[in-house]
Order: sequence, then structure tokens, then C-alpha cells
Amino acid sequence: MTTISPLAPTEFPSLPAVSGVSVATACSGVRYSGKPDVFLASMIPGTQAAGVLTRSQTAAAPVDWCRKVLRRGRARALIVNSGNANAFTGLEGRKSVERTVDKVADTLNCPKSQVFVASTGVIGETLPDDRIRRSVAGLHDTLSPDAWQEAATAIMTTDTFPKGAWRRASIGDTEITLTGIAKGSGMIAPDMATMLAFIFSDAAISATVLQNILSRGIDRSFNSITVDGDTSTSDTALLFATGAAGNRPIVAMNDRRLHAFRTALDGILVDLAHQVVRDGEGASKFVSVNVSGARSARAAKRIALSIANSPLVKTAIAGEDANWGRIVMAVGKSGEKADRDRLRISIGGIRVTDGGRAVPDYDEAPVARHMRGREIDIDVDLQIGKGAATVWTCDLTHGYISINGDYRS
Amino acid sequence: MTTISPLAPTEFPSLPAVSGVSVATACSGVRYSGKPDVFLASMIPGTQAAGVLTRSQTAAAPVDWCRKVLRRGRARALIVNSGNANAFTGLEGRKSVERTVDKVADTLNCPKSQVFVASTGVIGETLPDDRIRRSVAGLHDTLSPDAWQEAATAIMTTDTFPKGAWRRASIGDTEITLTGIAKGSGMIAPDMATMLAFIFSDAAISATVLQNILSRGIDRSFNSITVDGDTSTSDTALLFATGAAGNRPIVAMNDRRLHAFRTALDGILVDLAHQVVRDGEGASKFVSVNVSGARSARAAKRIALSIANSPLVKTAIAGEDANWGRIVMAVGKSGEKADRDRLRISIGGIRVTDGGRAVPDYDEAPVARHMRGREIDIDVDLQIGKGAATVWTCDLTHGYISINGDYRS
Repeated sequence: MTTISPLAPTEFPSLPAVSGVSVATACSGVRYSGKPDVFLASMIPGTQAAGVLTRSQTAAAPVDWCRKVLRRGRARALIVNSGNANAFTGLEGRKSVERTVDKVADTLNCPKSQVFVASTGVIGETLPDDRIRRSVAGLHDTLSPDAWQEAATAIMTTDTFPKGAWRRASIGDTEITLTGIAKGSGMIAPDMATMLAFIFSDAAISATVLQNILSRGIDRSFNSITVDGDTSTSDTALLFATGAAGNRPIVAMNDRRLHAFRTALDGILVDLAHQVVRDGEGASKFVSVNVSGARSARAAKRIALSIANSPLVKTAIAGEDANWGRIVMAVGKSGEKADRDRLRISIGGIRVTDGGRAVPDYDEAPVARHMRGREIDIDVDLQIGKGAATVWTCDLTHGYISINGDYRS
Repeated sequence: MTTISPLAPTEFPSLPAVSGVSVATACSGVRYSGKPDVFLASMIPGTQAAGVLTRSQTAAAPVDWCRKVLRRGRARALIVNSGNANAFTGLEGRKSVERTVDKVADTLNCPKSQVFVASTGVIGETLPDDRIRRSVAGLHDTLSPDAWQEAATAIMTTDTFPKGAWRRASIGDTEITLTGIAKGSGMIAPDMATMLAFIFSDAAISATVLQNILSRGIDRSFNSITVDGDTSTSDTALLFATGAAGNRPIVAMNDRRLHAFRTALDGILVDLAHQVVRDGEGASKFVSVNVSGARSARAAKRIALSIANSPLVKTAIAGEDANWGRIVMAVGKSGEKADRDRLRISIGGIRVTDGGRAVPDYDEAPVARHMRGREIDIDVDLQIGKGAATVWTCDLTHGYISINGDYRS
């Protein structure tokens, strides 16, 4: 179970410090012993905050809290634990969050409304927040600018590798840093409610602008990946900008200096999202599904997700079978308009269907070779419009069933 | 692969003849050799027809044909083949259907618009309809009232057992018979597009009324089951009524004599639908998901399908784990309104969650015992409205992955 995913990057990136942010981790023993399981980030006064949270109707208590404090858009601290998601824990869950926030606000001497919280781990068990609170003083004493790999590791549950990414960008003459970490391995790992991402920057950008670019960026990254189609009760992506880099603040979406920052942010988000797919439960192949020629971008994304979520497509990929019939099926069931007789499907860049049927005598050898690789490309052109979207997923293997079903006791 | 599903009924039912209908099967060699693979039903003039077809945007050629002739609502013949779905076969696929219809209409001396066609099997290969046409004369010569088990067997692809059901009902003083057969094993079996169901009755009921009650009946039967959430390009359910029983015809929905017939029809549809789930690929458990207290019946069904399609719920059931956290997740992701803190979940009739958290100290022993059984009952009460729905599914096991992914060549 602890074998590292065959799709993992070769090493954890060397993440740069972000001016105005310091981080620390500790072993609080929420569930695991001897493994760091709490992560604290402290940010300077004035730090702007934005976030995107799960749309689940049964969201966890920390998600409710973040939704509330995000309205103010200011952050001084973020505290995250692994091992217990504090999800479906009733009134007690809300109190756990409040007690934790009190402790952090007290220790860092900041307003409660500027403390963000996230939890990941088992659902439905009361969070032993006393253990987290007991570790806050120690976390505060050991804050440093560099403990990113430790932080990425502390938030892991069933992840097989820590996930991090960074970018640099310029705002005017000022060099800006963005550093991010994430966790996730299956939209929900076994009982492990999941997918967290935290991005920190030293840019001076208003919360409103941050929120706008984060929401759009998430659409094309974390909301464009799927492992099993299941949506966590805890999904949380937060973006913090301290302003310590000293650029003249960006306060409007039409500020042309925003472009480079946005490109860097989008890059980090896609990078981290890909790492989550690469750690998909049981994954042996990384799959890109590119849909074009749909009636709209929204239709293209729905079709791409229909393909990426189809158990029959995913098992065929695991079986290294270029089974385009199942792709046709998945296009057809998406509910979006398609013309069977215009549909073009390519696998590994080789067109396999056209005009409503298989391309006669297409060269199967390069397609078969492509299917044996680790990176699979599926292109679908509907030829009825201009909408396009890309979604990333992994295959569906015996490993997924073993991780999620083979724990009969 | 040919092991019979552990959830199969102990034997094929003894299906009664239906006055006005005769059936025959043959080995045409479309794909398999030595296995009956064509089924012909001949019906007397005046037979009324109704049907429900896949909503897939990439439907197979026979589906297009049936949609067209259904508008007239009259049937004299049905011809079905297994081994090749005639799906995604372009213009050639349409011609195959037309040639087959010509041959059957010619042999039975009936209008082409009263010949129905269905095909099930591999997608994307040209149908060798010459083999089917060559067998039509022999089929015609061997028509009999009783060959139902042979018919149910001839339409099988990856099914592990033939599926049949029958009911009797009274219309006024007249005794009516309904006999049905079906195939399906996974919404799409490996390359095997399909779920087919054919119901025959000797009742005199107009096509309009038949269509109305069939559509509603399908909603609560074949449209309330899921094996893998994948929708076939060939799904076809047809209902024929010969009128040979001699009852005074029913021509209006408000005819009170319709009630008993409708109950019988609904019974057959649910029976056949359950048999399809019991033959679900790799299935080891039959799962009933009952959702109540939703905002509407439609919302209840969406929530039930969200649970029944969740890979995490299905693998937990395979693992005999009463993992209600995953059920909470699936309710939350459905997109329908739910109140986390009112949600009640029962497993095997034992309430496990209430008031937004686990029921403290619920008796785990009977729940664990229930999970070890073959029939699993999940009840979800949202407590926010009066909408209710039931959906049936099976678990997700290594068997599913093996059937659909383990054919690496």
C-alpha cells in the first residue's frame, strides 16, 4: 500500500521561501503516531486571501468555517491536520474548529476571522482537537521560511508522495514568488476525505482579484481532473498573498501587470492537479482527454468528464486496449449534443475513427505502442462547434479495488 | 468468464406462450459459431407496439430504425442478433438494417414499417447481415409458440444466464398473458453494447396507451438500475400487444381495466431489470438504494443514482464494509439539496447516522452480518421533503476489472 505511484515525479521540487510566510509541522498524534500530521502557516498582517471550496452539500466543518471567513478576504494563519477530516461530526465538529481557531488566534495574536482551517482523513469520527491545540505553541516556536517539504508531507493521508510546485513571475519590476503544496489521491481516498491545495505568494494583489483568478484557474486545473468521479466533503484550495514583495498593489482585473502572475498561478495549479492524478489510487497511466469542436466550452468539458469518468474507458486503458467504441459510448451518454457521423477520435495522435465509423485500415502498431506507455492522449473532435476542454485522469485498475475494497476484516 | 453469476436465479422460469406470437432462433454465425445468435418473433396483423430507446447521442443503427417505425405503433416482426451491435458503423450500418428488414418483410409478407430490429455485440465492426438474412427462411419455418428459453439465450453476449419473466392479469373477464425476455450485464459489456428487453402480450391495448405505461414503467425499472453508470448505444425495450386475447380494446389511459395489466407489466419490468443487475459484471452483491425525504422524486432518484454509481460506495460494499462516510459523500456530490445535519442513513434496517453524525454506540454486529450477505439494503432519509426513489445496483469487484481490463494481448 505504501509503494510510491509509478507515475510519481522523480523528486520533490526545491520550493522557495515566500516573503511574509513562515511554516512549521508537528506530530500531534491525531491518528497516526510518529508521523507529522499538523501544519501551521503564519502570514504577516495585511495578507490577502481567496479560496475555492467543495460544492458538496455535506461539506465538512472546516469547509463551513473557511467559507465564512473568506468573505473578509484576510489571512494571518492556516492550520491543517491529516488523519481526521472532521466531516459529518455534527455540532461537535463545529466546536472543534472554533476551539482550534481560538488557540491559533491566541498564540499568533491575530483575529479569529483571519485563521483558516482544513482537515483531511477519516469521515465521521470526532476530531481530537485537544491534540492539535496542544501542538500549536510548539508549531509557533519552530516557524521557519523553508519547511515546505515537511508541510507537504504532513498533510498526506493515502498519498504515496508529497506534492509541491513553484513559479516565479514579474509584476512590473518586482520579482514575485509563488509556492504551493497539495494532497489528494482519489477524490476521496479510503475514508480519507480529500484534496487540499495551498498556494502562497509575496505579491500585493487584492483579495477580490485573487478570488477571481483563483476561481478561473481552478476550473482548468483541480476542477478538470478526476480519479473516480467522487467528490470529497473537504475539497479546499486556498491562495494567500502577503504583499511583502512590495509591488504597487494590483486591485483590478484589467491591470495588465496581472498577466504574468496569472500565468504562473495557472501553471502551479495545473502542476499540482496533475500530481494528484499521478497519485490516483491504483493509477498506472496518466490520461489526457482533449475534446474540441463541441457546441461550447462547457459542453466540451462535460463530454471530456464523461469519457474520463467512464469505468469502461478507464479499464480499457488499464488493459492497454485502444477501445474507441467505449469512447463513442461515453460521448453519447454525456447528454451533450454530438453527431455520431462527424465524430473524430484520435489515440496517441493517430486518427482511429472518422465519419461515424472506424478509419479503414488505420495503422494499429503505433496506437498499440502508445497504449503500452505511461502517458495516454485521447483527442475527440465533435466537429459541430468551437468549444474545447481538457481533462486529466488515470486508469482504473485492480489496485483501485484493492485500496478501496480489500480490507475485509 | 463463463461462470454463472452467484446472484443468478436458480432456474429459468417456464415462460407461457402468448397468443398471436411465435418465435424461433438460429445459429447464423454472425460472430460466434455453434451458438444460437438470431431470434425472430412473428406477430399477427394488428399487433400494437411501444418502445423506449437509448438517449445516447451516438445510438446504433437499429435504434435509429426502431425510433422511426415506432411512430406508427404497429408490429409484425422483431429480429434480433447477438455478436455485433451494428453501432458506429456509418452509412453501411443503416444499409445493413434496411437489407435485413427487407428480407424479413418479404419472408413474412408484411410492411417494412412493422419490422423491428435490435443488435447487440461488438461496436464498430460492419455487421455481416448476409448471414442473418440467410437464416430468415429457416427461422420462419421453425416458428413455434414456446421457444422462449432459446430466444433468451440467443440474445445473450457476456450474460452468464438467460433472463425471462412472465405475469398473468385480467382485463375485464379476459385473462391476459405477458411474457418477457432480456439481456444485459453491465450497461455495456466488454465491447458488447447493450441492454435489450422484449415484452409480448395478447392484450388488446392501443399503441398510445402501451407507450405511456411502458415509458413510466421503464423509469422505475430499467432506468432505475446501474451497473457501472455507462449507457449503451443500443439500449432497447419494446412492448408488443397482439390483441388475440379478445378483450374489448383499451384505448385510453383512464380505462380502469388498465390497472391490473399495468401492475403486471411493471412487475415484469422490475423482475427483468433485477436480473440484469444480478448478472452485473463481477457482481457479488445485489444492492437496493432507497432514498426518501428528498425535495422531489426526481431529486431522490438523482441522489440514489449518485450513491449507486459511486465507485467508493461500490468497492466498500464489495469489501463488506458498512462505510456510511462514503454514502454521505455520494449524497453530498449529487448536486441535489441535502441538509447534512438532518441526514439519516440505515444499513440493513439499522440506523447508523442521525443528526449529522454517527449514531453513538449503534449495534455494529447486525450491520456487519448484513454486509456479509448477498442482498444489501441502504436507506437514506433526507428529511427535507417527500420525494422518494429506489435504485438497484451491484458491487464493484476485481471481477469487473478483470472482465473489462484484463485482456492485454
